[in-house]
Formats: sequence, structure tokens, C-alpha cells
Amino acid sequence: MSEYTSEELTEALRAINSIISKCEKAQEKFPEGNTHHTLLKNRLKAMYISKVLITDAISRNNN
Amino acid sequence: MSEYTSEELTEALRAINSIISKCEKAQEKFPEGNTHHTLLKNRLKAMYISKVLITDAISRNNN
Repeated sequence: MSEYTSEELTEALRAINSIISKCEKAQEKFPEGNTHHTLLKNRLKAMYISKVLITDAISRNNN
Repeated sequence: MSEYTSEELTEALRAINSIISKCEKAQEKFPEGNTHHTLLKNRLKAMYISKVLITDAISRNNN
């Protein structure tokens, strides 16, 4: 059982999906190697990892 | 053992701390109840949860 409720985790997942979508759109505007592109790439990687960890925590809450 | 290496998780933590710092600064510019303030509040909550879950995953990797 995580220290967060499934509702809190589901809300967090929604916020993260929204950030991912915005970062992906923003990333398209900059060429690879550009500092903005790299910053967004690092942020997106962090968001993808967060998404997996939150999804895992939701599964643990449901088991 | 998490599916991510401690290095990947530490990098993700760095990106999340940077997002938190930017969102906190941005939030100060909008009054409570303002839609931007609320959006940032939801994002910050998601980032705080992500931070805890990533920190937990790093501890699991180290044990």
C-alpha cells in the first residue's frame, strides 16, 4: 500500500499526461541538439519514469 | 530492484526538482483561485508525488 491514495495517484497521472503532451508538442518546434530540445528531452524522460512509477503505485494500491 | 538504474532515477529527480522550482516561482505570480494558480497547484502536487516515488525507487535500488 502506497502512502498515497489511488485517487491522488490518478490525479497525478492526469497532470503528468498533460505535461507530457505539452512537452512533446514543444519539442517538435526545436531541432535535435538545440538546448530547448535537450531540456525537454530530459523533462520528458523524467515524466515517462514518473508515469511508470505512479502506475506501479496504483497497481500496488489495488492489490 | 526497480526497472530503472539509480543514475536514470537521479537524473529524473534533478529534472523534477527543476520543474518544481519553476512551477513554484510561476505560482507566486497568480492569485489563489486563478486557473493558472490551480493548474500549477495540480502540477506541483504531481511533481511532489513523483519526487517521493523516485526517491523510494532509488532507496530500493540501493538495498
